[in-house]
Amino acid sequence: MLMDLFDRLFPINRSITGNGVRESLRILGESVPIELREYKTGTPCFDWEVPKEWNVRTAYVKDSHGRKLIDFADNNLHLMGYSVPFQGIVSREELMAHLHTRPDLPNAIPYMMSYYKENWGFCIEHDRLGEFTDDSYEVYIDADLEDGFMTIGEGYLPGATEEEILLSTYVCHPSMAINELSGPLVQTAVYRYLAQRGGLKYSYRFLYVPETIGALLYLSQHGERMKSKVAAGYVVTCTGHGESFTYKKSKRGDTLADKAAIHVLKQSGKPYEIVEWNPFGSDERQYCSEGFRLPVGSLMRTMYDKYPEYHTSLDNRTLISEEALQETVQMYIDIIETLEANETYTCLHIYGEPKLDKRGLYPYTGGNRTEEQKRRIAAITNLIAFSDGKRDLIDIAEKLGVVGSTLHEPALALEQCGLLRKIDRFSFDLAVSQIG
Amino acid sequence: MLMDLFDRLFPINRSITGNGVRESLRILGESVPIELREYKTGTPCFDWEVPKEWNVRTAYVKDSHGRKLIDFADNNLHLMGYSVPFQGIVSREELMAHLHTRPDLPNAIPYMMSYYKENWGFCIEHDRLGEFTDDSYEVYIDADLEDGFMTIGEGYLPGATEEEILLSTYVCHPSMAINELSGPLVQTAVYRYLAQRGGLKYSYRFLYVPETIGALLYLSQHGERMKSKVAAGYVVTCTGHGESFTYKKSKRGDTLADKAAIHVLKQSGKPYEIVEWNPFGSDERQYCSEGFRLPVGSLMRTMYDKYPEYHTSLDNRTLISEEALQETVQMYIDIIETLEANETYTCLHIYGEPKLDKRGLYPYTGGNRTEEQKRRIAAITNLIAFSDGKRDLIDIAEKLGVVGSTLHEPALALEQCGLLRKIDRFSFDLAVSQIG
Amino acid sequence: MLMDLFDRLFPINRSITGNGVRESLRILGESVPIELREYKTGTPCFDWEVPKEWNVRTAYVKDSHGRKLIDFADNNLHLMGYSVPFQGIVSREELMAHLHTRPDLPNAIPYMMSYYKENWGFCIEHDRLGEFTDDSYEVYIDADLEDGFMTIGEGYLPGATEEEILLSTYVCHPSMAINELSGPLVQTAVYRYLAQRGGLKYSYRFLYVPETIGALLYLSQHGERMKSKVAAGYVVTCTGHGESFTYKKSKRGDTLADKAAIHVLKQSGKPYEIVEWNPFGSDERQYCSEGFRLPVGSLMRTMYDKYPEYHTSLDNRTLISEEALQETVQMYIDIIETLEANETYTCLHIYGEPKLDKRGLYPYTGGNRTEEQKRRIAAITNLIAFSDGKRDLIDIAEKLGVVGSTLHEPALALEQCGLLRKIDRFSFDLAVSQIG
Repeated sequence: MLMDLFDRLFPINRSITGNGVRESLRILGESVPIELREYKTGTPCFDWEVPKEWNVRTAYVKDSHGRKLIDFADNNLHLMGYSVPFQGIVSREELMAHLHTRPDLPNAIPYMMSYYKENWGFCIEHDRLGEFTDDSYEVYIDADLEDGFMTIGEGYLPGATEEEILLSTYVCHPSMAINELSGPLVQTAVYRYLAQRGGLKYSYRFLYVPETIGALLYLSQHGERMKSKVAAGYVVTCTGHGESFTYKKSKRGDTLADKAAIHVLKQSGKPYEIVEWNPFGSDERQYCSEGFRLPVGSLMRTMYDKYPEYHTSLDNRTLISEEALQETVQMYIDIIETLEANETYTCLHIYGEPKLDKRGLYPYTGGNRTEEQKRRIAAITNLIAFSDGKRDLIDIAEKLGVVGSTLHEPALALEQCGLLRKIDRFSFDLAVSQIG
Repeated sequence: MLMDLFDRLFPINRSITGNGVRESLRILGESVPIELREYKTGTPCFDWEVPKEWNVRTAYVKDSHGRKLIDFADNNLHLMGYSVPFQGIVSREELMAHLHTRPDLPNAIPYMMSYYKENWGFCIEHDRLGEFTDDSYEVYIDADLEDGFMTIGEGYLPGATEEEILLSTYVCHPSMAINELSGPLVQTAVYRYLAQRGGLKYSYRFLYVPETIGALLYLSQHGERMKSKVAAGYVVTCTGHGESFTYKKSKRGDTLADKAAIHVLKQSGKPYEIVEWNPFGSDERQYCSEGFRLPVGSLMRTMYDKYPEYHTSLDNRTLISEEALQETVQMYIDIIETLEANETYTCLHIYGEPKLDKRGLYPYTGGNRTEEQKRRIAAITNLIAFSDGKRDLIDIAEKLGVVGSTLHEPALALEQCGLLRKIDRFSFDLAVSQIG
Repeated sequence: MLMDLFDRLFPINRSITGNGVRESLRILGESVPIELREYKTGTPCFDWEVPKEWNVRTAYVKDSHGRKLIDFADNNLHLMGYSVPFQGIVSREELMAHLHTRPDLPNAIPYMMSYYKENWGFCIEHDRLGEFTDDSYEVYIDADLEDGFMTIGEGYLPGATEEEILLSTYVCHPSMAINELSGPLVQTAVYRYLAQRGGLKYSYRFLYVPETIGALLYLSQHGERMKSKVAAGYVVTCTGHGESFTYKKSKRGDTLADKAAIHVLKQSGKPYEIVEWNPFGSDERQYCSEGFRLPVGSLMRTMYDKYPEYHTSLDNRTLISEEALQETVQMYIDIIETLEANETYTCLHIYGEPKLDKRGLYPYTGGNRTEEQKRRIAAITNLIAFSDGKRDLIDIAEKLGVVGSTLHEPALALEQCGLLRKIDRFSFDLAVSQIG
């Protein structure tokens, strides 16, 4: 059950660095191999660099009677991410300058952080501001913000080719459910499925990174290689909530990643929405930057910023479900199976139609046929008619209104009797991906 | 009356070979010259070959009391097409293995055939199965299935150029009305119209072939020539039934055939539907195969497989009408007249508008005009503005919302006063057709 | 108030030549400099030539009792434009051959002219035909139709570059309101705004020409220069009536003029309609002729021939309003400000996103933001993501759903900190305009 895993991971204080990330990756790594890679503070990532490492032991605010009004132990969202160590008595006014609330969501603790400017802060429900009537408060933040390491998790499943499918999620969000425990949970379930499946055509890479800085770090070290290897990729985020799927296209918008995802969603019969790439989002912002233009989109359910509880403590267990998570896992699997099945063929018989009955591909008796017979005949005759070395199985499946993977077996039958020949398009597609 | 011709042709037992085809072509040939061409059994047609010739004299099934339960003389659909000669007493079980019905259409005799695997069979109404209570039956099929000939009918009207418009229909279906006596009837009426019209720009070829094998045979002998000569073509089938027209595009989808047909349908004000090319259909499957990619679509009314009576004895006289057939004849004629009128011009006066009144093309007095004047002025000014050596009359007519042929006369007037010059585009289009 | 100017201009008898044009341009020139240029009768303009100059003193028709039934002094539409001098007694029949009415609009005086064929005529309300019961009439037309000059008005505002924005309107219509005093009024108000604004990037040219022959004359003298200088242009006509705007595209349809106008209309939230270029219209017919293909469209409100009073005396003061005129002036200004702001940038940081907080372009504290902050962040991140040296500010603004000019300041901020570099696209666009 993914929700069991959820319950173990939810309370951990994750951030872009620190032991919470390591502990989360260790737990996820119990069912699939995830290697932890550590990068020193100051490591350059293009225009950025790896920040100091942050770890918190205790943090609270007490009133003049010694009552804890805010306690990090209750909810790690109470402490603003990357708050510096601090200890002292502060006036009400000074405290208020460090207190963050959401007047529009008065019972929510907002999610705040200050990664790149040293500061401290607490976040509470707006409704509770009335409790702060004292003139002075004790603030205690027992934390380390020091040179250390940033941790990235990485998994890899080798396939028949070195061309890769990339799945990338992020592990830097504390105690929120949709955004973002759903992503790591779904990605890990897909990873487990593929590890057990075997017989893969593509190789698969699974990244668990701190958002933005982790993707930048990874690109700074592997980006050039990725440009020649990544055939398709998806950022796995916000995968646990809502009736409808959301697919955000890659920046190029017409990559294999986009084609396969949109095809499978369309044929699934499930509700979905397509969103154009834009620079408000997750790590597709980095993967699709002009220097890389990787074929990376993002398959979500209700997406970030489109539900009211986004980036607050109300984004919790009640919003997600095992069923929604599993349905998303299955959609990722369907997309991947379509990518695995997808090939481009050329029909070798181009003068009129080939005679199919003598090859056992067509009934000898003409006339009325069963629906099953009609479907198979349609698959075979359409593969013959449209396999021109340019259209792939997905294109032909779109014409027929079926999922690409269902053409796998008929295509193999036609290949075996010499009517279709497979075209090697990987290198071609990747070449295009680098120029396009 | 086409329905008189229908009544003479309907009872004849046609198949892909045999005397029924010859007799049908002879009757159609009474009003237009149709040459009969005979091809020997075994003649190769790419992946196929001409089958044996089939002719039936008698065929019946009698019960043990000598009563004829099924008789070919009643309806030639009762005998499965290409049934081998057979004579003998068979058990009920054996007979049932050779009996075909349509449980979903219990009062219909299905249309069945086994051209390429030797077998025999009978087809009856599903409702009549209860009559077969005896234990044994006498089966008698007095037929020839022997080396012989396959017959193709061909007509040709020479025009000013050797570029051809192709009309192709099929004459292999026994005793069914929509599919397929309507096609040969409509094609012959169009042929007659053009023979009487004279003064043709294009040459016209009319093929009457057995479906599939006949088109393959013709392509195997003339396909290379057709690639350089056929400017547009249509498969004439299912032309007698339904309120709405159906146009199935050529495989390339953007040929002159498609452009003219869709243009005329759109301007006709009649209901119509456009269907993409697909490999379920008639001889456009062969004409549009990758080795040829001819500019051949198909103008139909309600098309094959879209009416419940398709491929059964219920596809009979009650479903078609003289009116529907004649309306389809007229639509084919309108398309052809638009093709005849269609030309591409370049305007020779490109700096500002030419002065039209001094050439008698425009009224001297400005102000309000009659609708008739407005239409002529619109034709003339649009021809001048848009004749750029690329857009043809059909393109310009589309902008104006009129049928292309109505621009014929204004274009000639502009040509005569030196404002337009005709561009020879035939060779260009055909070159494209061979590459595209 | 534009309506004050309207009241001074309305009674003047304008035509394609004559003192009415000069007087109108003198009045318009009171607030902006308009140079009057005179071209001699017979001056060639491609296929045309400058006609004789026409000036009218008096014109009337009297019945046999000496009562004036028609008097040019009442409404200058009563005299057909370019009527030759005439004096004499004519029969009722002869008079009727020279009398024009609109049976469909019986209380309207039609607007008629015969520029290029010598003739005389009077125009009256159809309802008044019953007054013509006498057998003979005195006709008196005291007019000059002699060799003289045609007058064109021209204004010019130099900007930082020689690339021009062209506004062109026509001053040849007598005593009608929508078509055409609204155009000269709106054009002059836009001209005044730009003269006062200063700091222009583009240079601006304002033409006040007699329709057709004036545009042809101007093109014959300046057309070649315009092909290399005009970046965008608009024919200003029919700008005073109706709820909805109408934009008629340039013939090329995808020029900068079209892009800016359609973008601003779309973002304005006001109702509008887009019309394809066609050769029924105003001087875009000449500017867009194949020899020039200038990027010239036309922004109107309810356009010519789309309101029943068109080209009659009913097209008068009651149909237009100060408010509608001013709203159109503002729409032209919005388009021009978007053209002024529009630039194309290349982002110089292409590997991942640049770090914005350290450049003061992004708040250090992450989490929830105000709408204002979100808008600015969206502007900045979209400019960075999409500035690829091909998309301009208008393209990026379209993605964001804002008007292009709002991206001006954020783009400058990004340029100043070295993240964006401006691309010089003028010469490129103009080169395309000459080829395309």
